Amino acid sequence: MRSDQRENNDLRKITIETDYVKHPEGSVLISFGDTKVICNASVEDRVPPFLRGQGKGWITAEYAMLPRATEQRNIRESSKGKVSGRTMEIQRLIGRSLRAVVDLDKIGERTLWVDCDVIQADGGTRTASITGAFVAVVLAFGKLVDKGTIKELPIQDYLTAISVGVIENEKEILDLCYEEDSKAEVDMNVVMTGKGEFVELQGTGEEATFSMNQLQKMLSLAENGVNELVGLQKEAIGKWAEVIDRKQTSSVAGE
Amino acid sequence: MRSDQRENNDLRKITIETDYVKHPEGSVLISFGDTKVICNASVEDRVPPFLRGQGKGWITAEYAMLPRATEQRNIRESSKGKVSGRTMEIQRLIGRSLRAVVDLDKIGERTLWVDCDVIQADGGTRTASITGAFVAVVLAFGKLVDKGTIKELPIQDYLTAISVGVIENEKEILDLCYEEDSKAEVDMNVVMTGKGEFVELQGTGEEATFSMNQLQKMLSLAENGVNELVGLQKEAIGKWAEVIDRKQTSSVAGE
Amino acid sequence: MRSDQRENNDLRKITIETDYVKHPEGSVLISFGDTKVICNASVEDRVPPFLRGQGKGWITAEYAMLPRATEQRNIRESSKGKVSGRTMEIQRLIGRSLRAVVDLDKIGERTLWVDCDVIQADGGTRTASITGAFVAVVLAFGKLVDKGTIKELPIQDYLTAISVGVIENEKEILDLCYEEDSKAEVDMNVVMTGKGEFVELQGTGEEATFSMNQLQKMLSLAENGVNELVGLQKEAIGKWAEVIDRKQTSSVAGE
Amino acid sequence: MRSDQRENNDLRKITIETDYVKHPEGSVLISFGDTKVICNASVEDRVPPFLRGQGKGWITAEYAMLPRATEQRNIRESSKGKVSGRTMEIQRLIGRSLRAVVDLDKIGERTLWVDCDVIQADGGTRTASITGAFVAVVLAFGKLVDKGTIKELPIQDYLTAISVGVIENEKEILDLCYEEDSKAEVDMNVVMTGKGEFVELQGTGEEATFSMNQLQKMLSLAENGVNELVGLQKEAIGKWAEVIDRKQTSSVAGE
Amino acid sequence: MRSDQRENNDLRKITIETDYVKHPEGSVLISFGDTKVICNASVEDRVPPFLRGQGKGWITAEYAMLPRATEQRNIRESSKGKVSGRTMEIQRLIGRSLRAVVDLDKIGERTLWVDCDVIQADGGTRTASITGAFVAVVLAFGKLVDKGTIKELPIQDYLTAISVGVIENEKEILDLCYEEDSKAEVDMNVVMTGKGEFVELQGTGEEATFSMNQLQKMLSLAENGVNELVGLQKEAIGKWAEVIDRKQTSSVAGE
Amino acid sequence: MRSDQRENNDLRKITIETDYVKHPEGSVLISFGDTKVICNASVEDRVPPFLRGQGKGWITAEYAMLPRATEQRNIRESSKGKVSGRTMEIQRLIGRSLRAVVDLDKIGERTLWVDCDVIQADGGTRTASITGAFVAVVLAFGKLVDKGTIKELPIQDYLTAISVGVIENEKEILDLCYEEDSKAEVDMNVVMTGKGEFVELQGTGEEATFSMNQLQKMLSLAENGVNELVGLQKEAIGKWAEVIDRKQTSSVAGE
Repeated sequence: MRSDQRENNDLRKITIETDYVKHPEGSVLISFGDTKVICNASVEDRVPPFLRGQGKGWITAEYAMLPRATEQRNIRESSKGKVSGRTMEIQRLIGRSLRAVVDLDKIGERTLWVDCDVIQADGGTRTASITGAFVAVVLAFGKLVDKGTIKELPIQDYLTAISVGVIENEKEILDLCYEEDSKAEVDMNVVMTGKGEFVELQGTGEEATFSMNQLQKMLSLAENGVNELVGLQKEAIGKWAEVIDRKQTSSVAGE
Repeated sequence: MRSDQRENNDLRKITIETDYVKHPEGSVLISFGDTKVICNASVEDRVPPFLRGQGKGWITAEYAMLPRATEQRNIRESSKGKVSGRTMEIQRLIGRSLRAVVDLDKIGERTLWVDCDVIQADGGTRTASITGAFVAVVLAFGKLVDKGTIKELPIQDYLTAISVGVIENEKEILDLCYEEDSKAEVDMNVVMTGKGEFVELQGTGEEATFSMNQLQKMLSLAENGVNELVGLQKEAIGKWAEVIDRKQTSSVAGE
Repeated sequence: MRSDQRENNDLRKITIETDYVKHPEGSVLISFGDTKVICNASVEDRVPPFLRGQGKGWITAEYAMLPRATEQRNIRESSKGKVSGRTMEIQRLIGRSLRAVVDLDKIGERTLWVDCDVIQADGGTRTASITGAFVAVVLAFGKLVDKGTIKELPIQDYLTAISVGVIENEKEILDLCYEEDSKAEVDMNVVMTGKGEFVELQGTGEEATFSMNQLQKMLSLAENGVNELVGLQKEAIGKWAEVIDRKQTSSVAGE
Repeated sequence: MRSDQRENNDLRKITIETDYVKHPEGSVLISFGDTKVICNASVEDRVPPFLRGQGKGWITAEYAMLPRATEQRNIRESSKGKVSGRTMEIQRLIGRSLRAVVDLDKIGERTLWVDCDVIQADGGTRTASITGAFVAVVLAFGKLVDKGTIKELPIQDYLTAISVGVIENEKEILDLCYEEDSKAEVDMNVVMTGKGEFVELQGTGEEATFSMNQLQKMLSLAENGVNELVGLQKEAIGKWAEVIDRKQTSSVAGE
Repeated sequence: MRSDQRENNDLRKITIETDYVKHPEGSVLISFGDTKVICNASVEDRVPPFLRGQGKGWITAEYAMLPRATEQRNIRESSKGKVSGRTMEIQRLIGRSLRAVVDLDKIGERTLWVDCDVIQADGGTRTASITGAFVAVVLAFGKLVDKGTIKELPIQDYLTAISVGVIENEKEILDLCYEEDSKAEVDMNVVMTGKGEFVELQGTGEEATFSMNQLQKMLSLAENGVNELVGLQKEAIGKWAEVIDRKQTSSVAGE
Repeated sequence: MRSDQRENNDLRKITIETDYVKHPEGSVLISFGDTKVICNASVEDRVPPFLRGQGKGWITAEYAMLPRATEQRNIRESSKGKVSGRTMEIQRLIGRSLRAVVDLDKIGERTLWVDCDVIQADGGTRTASITGAFVAVVLAFGKLVDKGTIKELPIQDYLTAISVGVIENEKEILDLCYEEDSKAEVDMNVVMTGKGEFVELQGTGEEATFSMNQLQKMLSLAENGVNELVGLQKEAIGKWAEVIDRKQTSSVAGE
């Protein structure tokens, strides 16, 4: 049993509230327990210079925390005048992951800006960001489809992320809260599609190392978590779930 | 009648939700219509260098908007590597205003960091920030009093802020929404105490000028708004309202 | 009587020296007592991106102090790598004020850069800057009229600024020097046109608050100061004073 | 067969030249084929603020490329005034990996700065950096042991890194050169100890995803590569190899 | 004859106005023709970290131009957020030159900040800055002597700077104005002491080269200019000239 | 005799290794004793904005040191977020010197980027950089000639640089190593062409001054050094030496 009464393979309580903020094309407030992230997707009608004239689009992500999202107040990155290495790693990861399931050829010369702003942090902010960002992205593209701006939903599969780790000498657990994360021997973030394929795998053992056997156990835990997350995403995106499911069936058939 | 059916002297619907985020000593979500700001007050046990060794405290404020708080997405100030002039003006205003009603001699060598983060913007973000920040500050100091860290609530009076302006050729209005603000001929922010004294007065007519007569009318509107805002603040701070009211009575008596 | 023998409603000795530096289209050295500011107006034949193609112009201002303009040497903002909040507030105020009396539609796609560089500071640098900048701007546009680049002087009215404040428990005074400013309970900057309309009003009481009655008294002092300043501006701009006066008469007549 | 005639499980020609530069405590030029990196380890007799007074040390890494290390010249990060997200990710990875095999409690309050400067790039610069940095670190600590500054070599195990990937539709390969890397469907960096434990695992499929089966195959390739790299490291560190080997034997015995 | 009617070995009209600004310990407005520079010397009662505890002082210089000191307006370095290479070269040159004639051991742990701000530029701003800065420095130290803060004037010799160059195919000239400077084939700045020793010599021929013979001719011109400049400096520093002259005589005697 | 057994007019052992790195058009590793600099020349097919449309090219240089090129590790300029004054001075000197011997009219609208990266420093890094950069530039342009991109080698003369100085009370020496440089009374860098004309002359005596007589002696030493350096450059550039020699003969003949 864990400190918050969860079994090793339990997710925290996860909620996804859509249309959280009124201006963005897609807007979501996602909670993984006490971790709360606002994920906003904004459509811009142009692409970065390196893509101009190629008829395809781009997705990029930014990540930040409110200064007091954490136990101790952090100095604002705008005051420091630069973005930290940690922030850059996370926003690059979010963007790369989203691009793996979006068909950029089908969105025209547009950029989707995805902003993940953590308003309360209790571990797993990057995995919550990816999981929520996917929903915001679907809603934003859905709006473009409804308006007739693009022809079809350019989403190839679901995209979820979850953390797994090893604590207390060899105990593998799913979805670490901050207290667990800070004492974990191994910390791994797994980004997976609805079909169970890996998009990103980032495992690290700063004070320790991990064996092939432990890796296997952690990956199994992750797979279970992903199924549950996909279920919540389906509810959140409503009518668009069908479109994605249909696409996946046909794609499996056509393999 | 205004575009949103309000009379000229009507405030928008205003709500103040306390304990919005779990880590800060004081945390508030304030809404002025569609403008929503998270105001967090954090206590740090030291003061900036210029105050060290004087036995008194400091209050400073920071202000930011989520990139998509507005109709068009704004570039993050952390990405630009610098804070805009507008942001600096606003956060200096918030800090200065709060310091006018807090007795810095009674808080020891502590800094109160007040973070106002706009998650949705529809005009009046700086006045909503000040009005909400006051509540967060009272709650944070209240917590210090409850813990016995400081002896008494170091608050001298209520602090509220409201916008007034002139639109459509000579029509004075209270609490401008974004649409009104963007076409206003004169725009004025009034920061006032519960007793009706001015703390800050900032009026500007970029395309136009204004007369003494118009100034008077705008200041009357502001005074009415302030009374309503103080009422909402009292509800939000609960038991601490009494403490402030008592202090004001005795201070009036002792004048 | 004040420390420098002035009555409460006295301005300091004010001088305006034109053509102070040779390269700028308009150049002025203005002194308010020991406060000395070089105000240079430079014409650039293009506008910022947000105005391109609209056939109108722009005015923007920058403000700085020499490091030893003050009693204590200040670190240069170029060495710090960023402009302070105070500087930004002042330069935004100067630019906004000037735009209120210039008809930007009549200057073509040009930008007027106004540089206010304080070489000696003794209080009131922002109000001296605005008052001097107005003269530099008139001279610069005058030169464009003389060269036939633009058809008429695009100035709608005079523009002056003056500080007022409250010191020593309830004494209202005009044009504060540094010593007065540093002990003032209320500090207010008033930007007014020649006709006596307000352009900007910025009052602040960091350690104190102020009442409606005090506000009225301060505004009266300001009005008197403005008349004297307009007189000095008329002398400085020579033949262009007539043009502005004529315009105002006809505008009053045509109201 | 690959474009450079290697089998899928072949490393490129790898060389490690020690004492490459004269000032650093440890200095190495490592080549993985045409990828050449100078790895310098510098000892500083103090630790960062967050570790002061704890009697333990720290290892941190910096990574850079000469502007023309690549086919196209890159703008220097010092000219841009900021370090890119890619650079930050890599230098954080190098530092974290080294800290996993160094016993920081045994080096006193010292910081080891590890600089990895790529002078020629042809894919795999981060894995070459880690593999070379380990040798530089051993040599630097060896020098401290020889001088009697520290009592024993604070190295717990060998540390190597290698890239694996998938190209051309389902072909798993080891040690990708730039040409292979730029067309890879999956790209994974594996950091491993001499005992075959994982330190870091970073797999990404930007345009594609990868299955559990592919992951297994890539990890096998990596394990083979690691053995060869450890052999080369042993030669490079000379007498210190024995010390590490002895420690590992006893540690296995004492498990 | 040159375009401004000077002979090749003529200086422009040079004036030195002392006590130009009221706050600095030493303040000078120096003009070399239309080039005008404010040179302020400020005393700070501490030294940079690398000198602490050694009982000696430091002199450092900063240089800037008002944006419209030149024909075309320049962007302010504080707005750009960084100091240009040209500015850095000049301020390093001014500081180095001054340190060559000041006895830093005799000023205690103090820093002299020398600010050279060009308000109007017409060539030779760096040589005017050095020549004027010397006077400001003498006046500042003189004030410290008069107050009894230091015992004697820590100045070993006069310090002057002048430009020489080659124009129009082989014509050597002294003290180039901007028009001459911009077409010069060779441009050389010579910093010399009153005794005629070199402190700095910086010659450059960007589009051309120069021979030993030309170098000799330019250095002769410079020597003549220096004598005249020393005369003007003596007048400007008044009673302190005697002190320096006496020191030089005794130092020559004691050689 | 000097500490490293050299006579006062001896250069250190100098070697020039060409084609050191594979990607650049011209690449050289130059050593002046223990000072080692990688000089890479890169061709870019466009010019900076101020030259566009004029049919001519540009040469610019950048200079950096690896953090541990020196006895003490230096903080990376990319981490500091800005380039130091010393670095700017050196890279401006290198660029200016190279432009003096290259015929920019003959290279079309191209920029040559010259990167001088010091991997080991022992005094004289700027003179080694210039001497090595010249070779890299010739090789890069030679490659363009061989490919037919430009018609002829746009090099007018050889370009070398050497340091001279005064140590130990009046002893003039050539090619100072770091130990000598740090105790030198006068330090001078001389950039010369193969014909013995000056390109740049930069002499400085921070703690001391120097006389005309000392200047003469230093310049003689420099001239001798230059001849030897030109010999080494000829060997390094192989067939291109003839082309430059031929041009010089005809240019002397045609004078």
